[in-house]
Amino acid sequence: MGNGEKWKTAITDIKPNKILLRGYPIDKLMGKISYAQAVYLALKGELPDEKTGKLLDAMLVSSIDHGVTPPSALATLIAASTGAPINAAIASGVLAVNKYHGGAIEDAMKAFYEIRSRVGNGNNLEKIVEDYIVELKEKKKRIMGFGHRFHSNDPRTRKLFQLAEEAGVGKEFIEIARTIEKVLKKITGRDLPVNVDGAIAAVLCGLGFPREIGNAFFIMPRIGGLVAHYYEEKTLQKPMRKIDPFNWEYDGPGEREV
Amino acid sequence: MGNGEKWKTAITDIKPNKILLRGYPIDKLMGKISYAQAVYLALKGELPDEKTGKLLDAMLVSSIDHGVTPPSALATLIAASTGAPINAAIASGVLAVNKYHGGAIEDAMKAFYEIRSRVGNGNNLEKIVEDYIVELKEKKKRIMGFGHRFHSNDPRTRKLFQLAEEAGVGKEFIEIARTIEKVLKKITGRDLPVNVDGAIAAVLCGLGFPREIGNAFFIMPRIGGLVAHYYEEKTLQKPMRKIDPFNWEYDGPGEREV
Amino acid sequence: MGNGEKWKTAITDIKPNKILLRGYPIDKLMGKISYAQAVYLALKGELPDEKTGKLLDAMLVSSIDHGVTPPSALATLIAASTGAPINAAIASGVLAVNKYHGGAIEDAMKAFYEIRSRVGNGNNLEKIVEDYIVELKEKKKRIMGFGHRFHSNDPRTRKLFQLAEEAGVGKEFIEIARTIEKVLKKITGRDLPVNVDGAIAAVLCGLGFPREIGNAFFIMPRIGGLVAHYYEEKTLQKPMRKIDPFNWEYDGPGEREV
Amino acid sequence: MGNGEKWKTAITDIKPNKILLRGYPIDKLMGKISYAQAVYLALKGELPDEKTGKLLDAMLVSSIDHGVTPPSALATLIAASTGAPINAAIASGVLAVNKYHGGAIEDAMKAFYEIRSRVGNGNNLEKIVEDYIVELKEKKKRIMGFGHRFHSNDPRTRKLFQLAEEAGVGKEFIEIARTIEKVLKKITGRDLPVNVDGAIAAVLCGLGFPREIGNAFFIMPRIGGLVAHYYEEKTLQKPMRKIDPFNWEYDGPGEREV
Repeated sequence: MGNGEKWKTAITDIKPNKILLRGYPIDKLMGKISYAQAVYLALKGELPDEKTGKLLDAMLVSSIDHGVTPPSALATLIAASTGAPINAAIASGVLAVNKYHGGAIEDAMKAFYEIRSRVGNGNNLEKIVEDYIVELKEKKKRIMGFGHRFHSNDPRTRKLFQLAEEAGVGKEFIEIARTIEKVLKKITGRDLPVNVDGAIAAVLCGLGFPREIGNAFFIMPRIGGLVAHYYEEKTLQKPMRKIDPFNWEYDGPGEREV
Repeated sequence: MGNGEKWKTAITDIKPNKILLRGYPIDKLMGKISYAQAVYLALKGELPDEKTGKLLDAMLVSSIDHGVTPPSALATLIAASTGAPINAAIASGVLAVNKYHGGAIEDAMKAFYEIRSRVGNGNNLEKIVEDYIVELKEKKKRIMGFGHRFHSNDPRTRKLFQLAEEAGVGKEFIEIARTIEKVLKKITGRDLPVNVDGAIAAVLCGLGFPREIGNAFFIMPRIGGLVAHYYEEKTLQKPMRKIDPFNWEYDGPGEREV
Repeated sequence: MGNGEKWKTAITDIKPNKILLRGYPIDKLMGKISYAQAVYLALKGELPDEKTGKLLDAMLVSSIDHGVTPPSALATLIAASTGAPINAAIASGVLAVNKYHGGAIEDAMKAFYEIRSRVGNGNNLEKIVEDYIVELKEKKKRIMGFGHRFHSNDPRTRKLFQLAEEAGVGKEFIEIARTIEKVLKKITGRDLPVNVDGAIAAVLCGLGFPREIGNAFFIMPRIGGLVAHYYEEKTLQKPMRKIDPFNWEYDGPGEREV
Repeated sequence: MGNGEKWKTAITDIKPNKILLRGYPIDKLMGKISYAQAVYLALKGELPDEKTGKLLDAMLVSSIDHGVTPPSALATLIAASTGAPINAAIASGVLAVNKYHGGAIEDAMKAFYEIRSRVGNGNNLEKIVEDYIVELKEKKKRIMGFGHRFHSNDPRTRKLFQLAEEAGVGKEFIEIARTIEKVLKKITGRDLPVNVDGAIAAVLCGLGFPREIGNAFFIMPRIGGLVAHYYEEKTLQKPMRKIDPFNWEYDGPGEREV
């Protein structure tokens, strides 16, 4: 049968004893750049400058774990409890990252890019944001990346925006996010601060990432946490226990300074 | 119903506006440590020293991608081609990490730890390794982490061992791996050099990681590559194409210096 | 902690030595009803009449397999080839059922139900369908469940509609599907016959199933085929072969009569 | 590149407007055989006789659901609760079928086939079984498919064995299973009756299925139940609720006669 023309890929070239990621020998990258910088290279095709690299690392660190109650952690624990191999337990956790859990990054990026594209028509930002939120409402949608069930002033958001500022990244998108906060307060009367999904979305927009891979910036780092949960389940618990999302407690080290 | 005693977790403590990873406020870690260091912290409970942190980053960088032909990449491309959301495409890739692809790390760690435990009985290492390989053969098993379909002298192995040496990590396990190479040559007559799975396994043993999570050190970093492949499929290809693992070509940048 | 009120489920009641599916002891169902009938019971809450039961069985039979080239089969083969356990190989196949492969049932049901709701406003069906297709086009969408890459006159569609007619099921939805065919021909000039997804969708609408679970009627039966492919891969092929979706051939029995 | 010889498949032949499952036109099978019979055909290559077909249907019916607490149901509910599409929710459930949940069929089949192969050496069955269980113990393994957390006299086992007897299927394997029960009682002093996994395993051995696909006979039918749970979660519950495996209640119809 055959299908004629060769299909193309520009990510990695493989030759005997040579692996080139976007043209760079992977062994030459090892020891020189962090994994977060390699992710940037894999996805954008170029190495980030140092500050951007640090920002990426901070972004990944921010989402590495959030304890045992997020659905992704529970899905991993349940699979582990039945005797799943580690990849199946991780996959199960990844499949729980959707619209309502970690999946808001893509939607928030879409909103931020759309709002950004409307700036410069003589309207001020607040008016643009207000119109956009009303439009969403008419379609029975709402803006994603704002408000959190647990954190009213998420320290991860604050730190991520601070590091972005220091790196000179995403100024206009952070302004958009802050304006959305203000408009939501005006419209709903409620405090719906940028959550960590929204903050990641703003920084990713600032770095020019496409929204289609936005959620990956939650999924990638969270694997680290899922692996830790998998190991606790395998070593501390009996198989097939009923995993109660209410009746647990933290018994690790108390707060300490870095 | 209820089940009495609370179950325990020592990974992350969550309080309103405070997320403590192994006791460290996550926002204080952001900007100070790399994601690879945070993985070490999540899994081992303590921060790595600087050289170990660098080694971890190098290990993750080593496995970020290996082009379009590994089964994990093909599984992700196939899912993407049917219109899968990004998390399902990633999960599909993760489910293709098994015994014959990326799944040798755990088995290699098991072998290295077992051989290590036999050292010091008066036997020399080569004899111990030889006995162990013979034992495996009798159980119709073989030692994992040696030999590669494509690379006869994998540059990632060389660099990882060099960085481990610089960090003073895993000396005895690297020696074990090198001895296995020698014994395999003697027994089989073939060159079966430590591959990247075997090299990662030796370093993880040196760092004291449990073998049960060994394969995670292939899965975690490879997500970065899978995301890049997902995005290429979504943007460059038509849905439902037949993905031919033979008829592709690399069209990215040529080799360049870091 | 606890969360007060108990959450409810009406599917299965479990008591020691008693399992009641929608009130029926499962051991009393065994030997009396087919699996397809049990699926109807689980999903609709009541037992189907005999003809409907047969129709359900026929629907599941229609989608059990379509050879080695559908993405779901390839995903299962790839996972199997890496040494995946059977559940991971099946899960990988299931994750390849999306918008462009088996995932059209839900969208087609949505269209059929919407068109059905507009009938009776004095307009004739053809006009309603035409307006609806134009509306979709304006939203850059198209109607799903029509046309097939391979079959111009799918025998499964014909048989399913015939059995539905015999069971007195879905008359109005089959008429809608046939009208869409006619309108598509008129608008596009091309033959885009109801495909098996579209036919299943029409019958499911006729049976009153909610569209949210429409795709399950592709996923459920296809598992049978995926298991067969998994077993062939495990028994006939070497691990880690490159699976070429072009270069295969069928070597089973020739056509035979039932 | 290309790889020369064509790889083979004997499951399904596809031609334009013709789909042949093991040689039979699929549209000719529709309306004539049940889905369970089609599964038999897909996996064994031949149509079952009528009694065997009924037995297969009964086997699938037996495992369609077991309420909300099995890990597979909880995994599906968790994914559904985050907004997962139906295929991801099903895949998540399938990934929770492992050694300790639904995954005992394969192991039980292995044991039954092994014991069967030892019969006829002059030893009586009880002695063979006893030796085998002792051998397992020495390898720190135990025989799977016996005992249940909840049911002391599982009605599904009883009915499945009764139907198998009526179909003249699996007599020797059912005897093996019953002998294991007896020996376990003798050795452990506890009642560890054949559970539904063990019963399915015995019947599958009687039908000559390979053990490698044994677990599929739990996975396939359970999809029906998972779909029902997915739909309840989507329609009755708010997204991102904490799913408590203790604090639920059944509110469906009371016990009724078939």
